[in-house]
Amino acid sequence: MTYLGLHALQHRGQESAGMAVGDGNGINVYRHMGLVSDVFTEEHLRALKGYLAIGHVRYSTTGSSRLVNVQPFSVRSRQGAIALAHNGNLTNTRALTEEFLGRGRLFHSSSDSELLLHLVAAQETLNLEDALQVLFDKAEGAYSVVAMTPKGIAAVRDPKGYRPLVIGKLDDAWVFASETTSLDLIGATYEREVEPGEIVVVDYNGFRSHRFPQSPRLARCVFEFIYFARPDSIVFGKPVYEVRKRLGRQLAIESPVQDADIVIPVPDSGVAAAIGYAQQMGVPFDMGLIRSHYVGRTFIEPEQRIRNFGVKLKLNPLPYYLKDKVVVVVDDSLVRGTTSKKIIQMLRARGPKAIHLRVSSPPVTESCHYGIDTPRREELIASRMDEEGIASFVGADSVRYLSVRGLIEAVGGDGTQYCTSCFGNGSGHGITDA
Amino acid sequence: MTYLGLHALQHRGQESAGMAVGDGNGINVYRHMGLVSDVFTEEHLRALKGYLAIGHVRYSTTGSSRLVNVQPFSVRSRQGAIALAHNGNLTNTRALTEEFLGRGRLFHSSSDSELLLHLVAAQETLNLEDALQVLFDKAEGAYSVVAMTPKGIAAVRDPKGYRPLVIGKLDDAWVFASETTSLDLIGATYEREVEPGEIVVVDYNGFRSHRFPQSPRLARCVFEFIYFARPDSIVFGKPVYEVRKRLGRQLAIESPVQDADIVIPVPDSGVAAAIGYAQQMGVPFDMGLIRSHYVGRTFIEPEQRIRNFGVKLKLNPLPYYLKDKVVVVVDDSLVRGTTSKKIIQMLRARGPKAIHLRVSSPPVTESCHYGIDTPRREELIASRMDEEGIASFVGADSVRYLSVRGLIEAVGGDGTQYCTSCFGNGSGHGITDA
Amino acid sequence: MTYLGLHALQHRGQESAGMAVGDGNGINVYRHMGLVSDVFTEEHLRALKGYLAIGHVRYSTTGSSRLVNVQPFSVRSRQGAIALAHNGNLTNTRALTEEFLGRGRLFHSSSDSELLLHLVAAQETLNLEDALQVLFDKAEGAYSVVAMTPKGIAAVRDPKGYRPLVIGKLDDAWVFASETTSLDLIGATYEREVEPGEIVVVDYNGFRSHRFPQSPRLARCVFEFIYFARPDSIVFGKPVYEVRKRLGRQLAIESPVQDADIVIPVPDSGVAAAIGYAQQMGVPFDMGLIRSHYVGRTFIEPEQRIRNFGVKLKLNPLPYYLKDKVVVVVDDSLVRGTTSKKIIQMLRARGPKAIHLRVSSPPVTESCHYGIDTPRREELIASRMDEEGIASFVGADSVRYLSVRGLIEAVGGDGTQYCTSCFGNGSGHGITDA
Amino acid sequence: MTYLGLHALQHRGQESAGMAVGDGNGINVYRHMGLVSDVFTEEHLRALKGYLAIGHVRYSTTGSSRLVNVQPFSVRSRQGAIALAHNGNLTNTRALTEEFLGRGRLFHSSSDSELLLHLVAAQETLNLEDALQVLFDKAEGAYSVVAMTPKGIAAVRDPKGYRPLVIGKLDDAWVFASETTSLDLIGATYEREVEPGEIVVVDYNGFRSHRFPQSPRLARCVFEFIYFARPDSIVFGKPVYEVRKRLGRQLAIESPVQDADIVIPVPDSGVAAAIGYAQQMGVPFDMGLIRSHYVGRTFIEPEQRIRNFGVKLKLNPLPYYLKDKVVVVVDDSLVRGTTSKKIIQMLRARGPKAIHLRVSSPPVTESCHYGIDTPRREELIASRMDEEGIASFVGADSVRYLSVRGLIEAVGGDGTQYCTSCFGNGSGHGITDA
Repeated sequence: MTYLGLHALQHRGQESAGMAVGDGNGINVYRHMGLVSDVFTEEHLRALKGYLAIGHVRYSTTGSSRLVNVQPFSVRSRQGAIALAHNGNLTNTRALTEEFLGRGRLFHSSSDSELLLHLVAAQETLNLEDALQVLFDKAEGAYSVVAMTPKGIAAVRDPKGYRPLVIGKLDDAWVFASETTSLDLIGATYEREVEPGEIVVVDYNGFRSHRFPQSPRLARCVFEFIYFARPDSIVFGKPVYEVRKRLGRQLAIESPVQDADIVIPVPDSGVAAAIGYAQQMGVPFDMGLIRSHYVGRTFIEPEQRIRNFGVKLKLNPLPYYLKDKVVVVVDDSLVRGTTSKKIIQMLRARGPKAIHLRVSSPPVTESCHYGIDTPRREELIASRMDEEGIASFVGADSVRYLSVRGLIEAVGGDGTQYCTSCFGNGSGHGITDA
Repeated sequence: MTYLGLHALQHRGQESAGMAVGDGNGINVYRHMGLVSDVFTEEHLRALKGYLAIGHVRYSTTGSSRLVNVQPFSVRSRQGAIALAHNGNLTNTRALTEEFLGRGRLFHSSSDSELLLHLVAAQETLNLEDALQVLFDKAEGAYSVVAMTPKGIAAVRDPKGYRPLVIGKLDDAWVFASETTSLDLIGATYEREVEPGEIVVVDYNGFRSHRFPQSPRLARCVFEFIYFARPDSIVFGKPVYEVRKRLGRQLAIESPVQDADIVIPVPDSGVAAAIGYAQQMGVPFDMGLIRSHYVGRTFIEPEQRIRNFGVKLKLNPLPYYLKDKVVVVVDDSLVRGTTSKKIIQMLRARGPKAIHLRVSSPPVTESCHYGIDTPRREELIASRMDEEGIASFVGADSVRYLSVRGLIEAVGGDGTQYCTSCFGNGSGHGITDA
Repeated sequence: MTYLGLHALQHRGQESAGMAVGDGNGINVYRHMGLVSDVFTEEHLRALKGYLAIGHVRYSTTGSSRLVNVQPFSVRSRQGAIALAHNGNLTNTRALTEEFLGRGRLFHSSSDSELLLHLVAAQETLNLEDALQVLFDKAEGAYSVVAMTPKGIAAVRDPKGYRPLVIGKLDDAWVFASETTSLDLIGATYEREVEPGEIVVVDYNGFRSHRFPQSPRLARCVFEFIYFARPDSIVFGKPVYEVRKRLGRQLAIESPVQDADIVIPVPDSGVAAAIGYAQQMGVPFDMGLIRSHYVGRTFIEPEQRIRNFGVKLKLNPLPYYLKDKVVVVVDDSLVRGTTSKKIIQMLRARGPKAIHLRVSSPPVTESCHYGIDTPRREELIASRMDEEGIASFVGADSVRYLSVRGLIEAVGGDGTQYCTSCFGNGSGHGITDA
Repeated sequence: MTYLGLHALQHRGQESAGMAVGDGNGINVYRHMGLVSDVFTEEHLRALKGYLAIGHVRYSTTGSSRLVNVQPFSVRSRQGAIALAHNGNLTNTRALTEEFLGRGRLFHSSSDSELLLHLVAAQETLNLEDALQVLFDKAEGAYSVVAMTPKGIAAVRDPKGYRPLVIGKLDDAWVFASETTSLDLIGATYEREVEPGEIVVVDYNGFRSHRFPQSPRLARCVFEFIYFARPDSIVFGKPVYEVRKRLGRQLAIESPVQDADIVIPVPDSGVAAAIGYAQQMGVPFDMGLIRSHYVGRTFIEPEQRIRNFGVKLKLNPLPYYLKDKVVVVVDDSLVRGTTSKKIIQMLRARGPKAIHLRVSSPPVTESCHYGIDTPRREELIASRMDEEGIASFVGADSVRYLSVRGLIEAVGGDGTQYCTSCFGNGSGHGITDA
């Protein structure tokens, strides 16, 4: 079940995978670099015996593609055997690490998971459930955590709720996952989110929830809607596909292309927004770029060199069809702009009358400090150029982004719910438009 | 270049891949089970030195998943070193094999490629170009062949033209490929098809074409349009995506669903037809089933057991969105019906008002003897049930197929151009409707 | 160089291997399960750049065949980045671990290496050289340690000197290794042992030695001479091959076989003692059992099942040659007796007149607590049977062991130098004879 | 059983391995590059079901390290399904191949096995047993063959008997193998050799022998005794270890070293001869060079580069022991002299008074054309230098070879039994001494 659940989250991290299994007495772990289906052979799964388990898929930030950072982490502590995995990124990692080093602690990795474990083990209580509350005091930033002992599992979500974490139920068993796609695959029903500032514990004594004060201003990652989550997921209580269509509709309202002949997506992540855009405009939607099934998702590959090669192998524009047409290309986001440039070069070779690029998110001008692997600020094209500059760089007749207000409206919140800091407001959340 | 060309044809065969390279003096071959990107490492590619090459990707028919059958074949013959790869299926394999065995020949494999080589080597001429003409006399059925010596390449297509084979040009070099996607990836331009009954030779003396009588009635495989080719390919001179959209439009004309709320494809092969169907009907198109990127194409996996598992891992219907809607599901074809049954089960769980299945091809009632790996007749659901029976089996409110006449009309031929024998006319080509 | 050094120590541990390399700024580590030549590919070695390095080969004790236990360990501590590897076994592991857990420390492994690192990091000094002295206060048992920062290497040996550790020199570079075979392979010269209770540091400031009080009674592991070290090594200052020959000579003096026709070893570990025995007796030495090159050493395989299979594949007695002869079989030690039983069964099938087993070490009656992977006491045949019982069990006409006094005499010490606790004196060292 | 049998013959070929299994109806084959234990996994062995099997291990001659050459070969022919493997080398390969190519045959490999199959399939009889007789008419050179149909196995040995082939029995089953070590491992008893010019067939009708005229002068490969066979084998009816000891004794008689202090072998192949030499001389035998267990046999590695590296990793001379001694080094043969040179360099560094190299075979001055992978003539040191020149090249105080007469005497034949052509008589057999 955990293996299948990880498989359904594979898009969230392709670099490595791991699983920890508890059998009431101890915890067995297996972790390795690679895709879920490569990491876990039948033999590994047979060896991982028990009745509760946590798992993780990981993508790397530069320099940390090392086995030692692969989650879950499994340690002995004064609270006994603990395995822990998390999604997100702490913002006070350096200070906490220095503090622990000064107190004689050892760090085997550069993973925040290990730091979270040090925070827990530093608590005098021998009870993991109690000890986990320290995270709300000490850990700053984004963390959705699953932790286990040989006998129980706890799920913790930071008070601002940056990263998703859902609760599902399968017969008598409880399931936690980043996205509901994991629940779908194993046939579990979606119950609700783990709330920001909540600790949920499942063990012999059943299901317990401890709610702690949420931040007055939440910071759910709006990029989950834009790009990161699978379209068939429910994230932060909302169906992603429908949110993406609304982003496309809003984009059409804000930045229509009046003489458009067809609207095409950059597949697959731009499909829903392109359908929304086309429907709003009343212009035919078509798959003008065909995606090969035999290459993975490019955003989360660790090396620039491979990414470029991947684009070339991945997409091919239709022959004949685009000739002399005014084509609107809808993409979900624009990061470095290099992929878009290649795509538009390929499309130009098919002879369209014009190519207008529409982006169903605002300009990304800041790196993410909360767990999305965006490039450094200086690599972000929108931090250096305006829409005209970008159009010129990528070779499009025009480029238009969605506004931050339009984004929030389409998502459906009131601006106090979502983190939009990658769009440049500097505060970690809130609405910003030029 | 050949490696990239194979990569762009990966959808035509995932079981094994091979390449033969000539350097003027000899031929080096490497062949292995697996995907192109797994079979050929940098080290292999570096070792395969030369200036001309042929390659092949293969999917297996039952029982022949053996390395010894992987193409290209490379032999010494009285015509010197020859490597040969083909697409298609001979229909007189058994008789020819018996004849050669009786004359003391050895067979190392069960591949028609080896038989084609025996036919060539049995010719007294020492010239490969001349010897290849024997194929038109002796080989019956479907064969698109590339053959090479250390110094030249020949391309041959059977007189009925069952399987595709195109000619491209890249600067001064000539390229042959099953689909134009190979040309696109390496930046070659599409010139034309190798004609049915044509032998094209490229060597030091340049490009030569020898045309032999075509069959009065051609038999191009219409399934290339329906399912097999990539939508961004030009096959038999026509753009596949546009043909598929026309199939969808024709299907909407023949079998509309009057109260439809949305039209969704079975991705990815049903997308173009679903867009055509939706546009013809004026009903919104949506991606109601989301396909995971982390599993391959199911049609050509060798084992039934894996196929079912693959369906479960591959597709997931949108949450909420389909609830209380009348949904039209468009698929390109219906073979066994077991995949469709699972898909409709998954959709039903999302609470639609009705599910109507529309298939953008006629009922497949016969196995293919010309190179498409269809199941045996008794496994084909349309050979045992009518549309109502099938609707009941798969759990749809209705099932409707495209007519053979509608198919031919949408493809654009006059009925003497295409093989439609899998739809049951028994003659290997021609139009049949009940 | 470090790779080759590990290769020359491969016999000391076949389960896993690792290496840490420092470049003045940081430490890179690679560790994996498997033999040295399998663990490190060219690619790994190229990635491990730097000018100082430590490495380790490991064999497992039951239950700990996990990647997480593979040495060297690499951590950040208040003393900065440290990598550490050790040979030996602490005897106060449990108490120290409990103490550290109680103080909020985390343990990722069950390796003493991690415990040694906790001891170091608990010291307030930021200087590794000073911090390492804590080992002499706190760590009990056997430990030969190499530790490194990005800029220097330290070697530490426990005050009783259980396990070997030598110093070599190669041009201007200093080399530490468990055996001199590593020095031989890379062309370094043997300088001397790291003394019991010594810390040697090599860094930018050159070579420094800090000597601390040795134990009044040393406890060098006499099993290094008997079995564990390679015969071409110098261990504890003595050449192993010559010591083994003296063990054989002493055995012949103590337990001659008067009518012996030939003396044969159990290859390869019994060869030197058998030559000594044969020379002392004036009886021909012969290789009566032929060892296959295609299986590894059996003593250190983790599973009983594999060990038995290995014996069957590994040794084959000569045909014809042993027929009607009185054969003396010399083996280095007798642990469980199961291998000897199989060997004597195989020899019997060749028709000798008699088979006398002579063992060039005393009866092993106790498990080792200082780093040799002997079975538990109850599996040791000599803890349950006397020589007659063992002869009956293994099927030999007689079995005789070397006496402890004879052992010490042959080794050349005075009884206060060596640990002989596996022969049953209970004190960890000293001479015991029944 | 066949797997174990191959394992016991691993020393005869490390490059690749294969097995064909018959179940009464068909033949399954698996072949791959690598050692037996790597090629065949449990999964492969489980898939190879049947009740009769043949197997093969192969070492390569330059340029042919290709999977396509790995034996056994399995084909369909007019005699039905046949699998065939052989040991040896035909001397009329080129002429036969040209003849078959001219008759329209295809060659997939450069292996004589394929040629043997063409010879068989060219026979009009549909009976394999009869068809195999063609080998005696047409195939020249060395061939020990096992061939199988789905229902029976035949073993054939050329009329001169170059290469070994023995018959064993295990309960009711018959076993064929190159050496008796295979019989030993599976517990079969040694019956006799397949005679030169004999065809043995085992099938449902039991065991049948067909004897054809032997050559008046046999040509058993004397190198099997000198080096190639395992010492625990019986080859050509004689125990190899004892023959090797006699070679060493004869060498001592012909070329004693009067003031020798010790005799040491180049392990492992020189051990038996060194023991014989030492016993004849009455000088102590010692293992002066210690061989690592973690590298394979060097003679049959395909690349010069690896061989040199292998020597360095493989052997290490004892420290101290050789100092100021007159050392006799006994090796089985001297091919290029480069390995000996390195060995003597290593020994010199240990400070002996003198080093005398004694070789227990005559000078190898010619390449082998009958299946031993010796280098080309110009690489053979003895084809260019006399004993003094070689001593100077390798750095020994003296070098002496065994005479051809001494060799034959020690082996025990009369000079009409063995092939000694690699020692330079040019006739393919017979005695030659300068």
